[in-house]
Amino acid sequence: MHVPDRVIVVEVGPRDGLQNETAMVSVDDKVTFIALLSAAGCPVIEAGAFVSPLWIPQMADTADVFARISKRTGTRYTALVPNVEGLNRAHAAGVTEVAIFAAASETFSRKNINQDIDASLAGYRDVCGRARELGIQVRAYLSTAFGCPFEGHIEPRAVAQVAGALIDMGAFEVAVSDTIGIAHPGQVPAVVTAVAERVPVEKLALHFHDTRGTALANVLAALDLGVTTFDASAGGLGGCPYAPGATGNLATEDLLYMLDGLGVETGIELNAVLAATRFMSARVGHAPASRYVAAMHAAGASTRPDDRRSSS
Amino acid sequence: MHVPDRVIVVEVGPRDGLQNETAMVSVDDKVTFIALLSAAGCPVIEAGAFVSPLWIPQMADTADVFARISKRTGTRYTALVPNVEGLNRAHAAGVTEVAIFAAASETFSRKNINQDIDASLAGYRDVCGRARELGIQVRAYLSTAFGCPFEGHIEPRAVAQVAGALIDMGAFEVAVSDTIGIAHPGQVPAVVTAVAERVPVEKLALHFHDTRGTALANVLAALDLGVTTFDASAGGLGGCPYAPGATGNLATEDLLYMLDGLGVETGIELNAVLAATRFMSARVGHAPASRYVAAMHAAGASTRPDDRRSSS
Repeated sequence: MHVPDRVIVVEVGPRDGLQNETAMVSVDDKVTFIALLSAAGCPVIEAGAFVSPLWIPQMADTADVFARISKRTGTRYTALVPNVEGLNRAHAAGVTEVAIFAAASETFSRKNINQDIDASLAGYRDVCGRARELGIQVRAYLSTAFGCPFEGHIEPRAVAQVAGALIDMGAFEVAVSDTIGIAHPGQVPAVVTAVAERVPVEKLALHFHDTRGTALANVLAALDLGVTTFDASAGGLGGCPYAPGATGNLATEDLLYMLDGLGVETGIELNAVLAATRFMSARVGHAPASRYVAAMHAAGASTRPDDRRSSS
Repeated sequence: MHVPDRVIVVEVGPRDGLQNETAMVSVDDKVTFIALLSAAGCPVIEAGAFVSPLWIPQMADTADVFARISKRTGTRYTALVPNVEGLNRAHAAGVTEVAIFAAASETFSRKNINQDIDASLAGYRDVCGRARELGIQVRAYLSTAFGCPFEGHIEPRAVAQVAGALIDMGAFEVAVSDTIGIAHPGQVPAVVTAVAERVPVEKLALHFHDTRGTALANVLAALDLGVTTFDASAGGLGGCPYAPGATGNLATEDLLYMLDGLGVETGIELNAVLAATRFMSARVGHAPASRYVAAMHAAGASTRPDDRRSSS
């Protein structure tokens, strides 16, 4: 099994995490959260979204957040944009890297962004064109790449086709996403191989949800295939919008625990991310989904193992 | 990455799971739970323990449980025994396969079974000798093989040495166990390779806890190394005795979801295990730790995905 020397972990907690929390978090608390993640060494932090506040009220204050982030050298601060208008707002807020979001499933595309795939790609071509003029880098999400809540199975060729279109229009990277958390390591090679035939593997990121507990196994399978960029959310913030109560984003701490164990460098300090998670957990009002965080919390609560016998 | 055609999943929920639950479960409910697991196709079910009720009151009724199990052809029903007395009680109850439990860590051995490793192995030699006379098969657990709550790191050579001694004395299989749930896929090759130099890999099982979320990734790494037997607990029953509130045993459903996805045969029907877990969850009074079970529960609670936009 192959593992690379270094992996880029894209921290999506402040955006993909918080937008799926019911609690509204203040600008102050978002700025503190992002500062803690920066101090942990995160190389990329998705800090907000320039979308309609009618769509996602949790992200309505993203311009205020960007105005107040203390930017750390070595960290890229990014924001989601749905269209040229959002891009212009991001630019006005001083954002230099944005993310667009397409889908591999026609039905999901219509339900999620109210456009079919081709229409969404046409809009994103405009975003990429304008971004070039502004000197802004564009990342692309590709949702439902491992399955769709409406259509079920999605053909890897279809995923590769949309991924290729996103790279062709100027995205520097495509985050192939397991939106509903059903991916398993038996599926990862088929999807990664299909996309890698169309897109250089260095431009391929993976965005896993841990809804069925397979996210780390999926990462392990993907490392073996040469993928070196993975999205994660501090504490597993965000939950699963398609099954409230279930786990959503892969927790950054769980990913770092495995990568640290594998000797893969990330530049991120696990315990410092844990501190950021503890700060934000108190604001969102529930315990983090991360197994690692739960173990650390439990270990802190009971400082010594009991003497229960015959444990295995 | 290599995966075998077939894997044996050893279901430890009725013993390792229930003994670590605070709720006392009736014989009736244990028998029903075991019947549901049998109907799911589990090839091996650890159904109880013949240990002192002062040690583990949850297992005091194991003889009654064995008297009432409707044994399914194709399923082996096993019980934990600490010594010859326990073995004799198991034999009297009609048990034909038992499990002993040694440790790779001296300190853990003394704390867990009140004997140093050599003394425990001497006792287990007597168990194996008596088991041979009785025609009973002996499985061995080897706890703290990936780390000890008292000593920290455990040398893979030390693990291999105790594993070898257990096989030499007549155990047909040694379940190398991550007692405190700290194993990661960077560590699995070192431990498995060291043990496999001393014990044929077919006699090596792995018993992972999902305390830090790495259990499935560990299984994936171990499959690649030729290991084909894994322990799991329905729903993740049992929790973690070393960090109350944290996750313990790898959940059978999570393991099956991954193995099914990899095309690895187990003979076990995932949804039927889920039914067993639902039955027992109501008895132990808390939600299962299994991510898969939580996702199915959440999906059942909300039958249609919402239309929240910009999900990735």
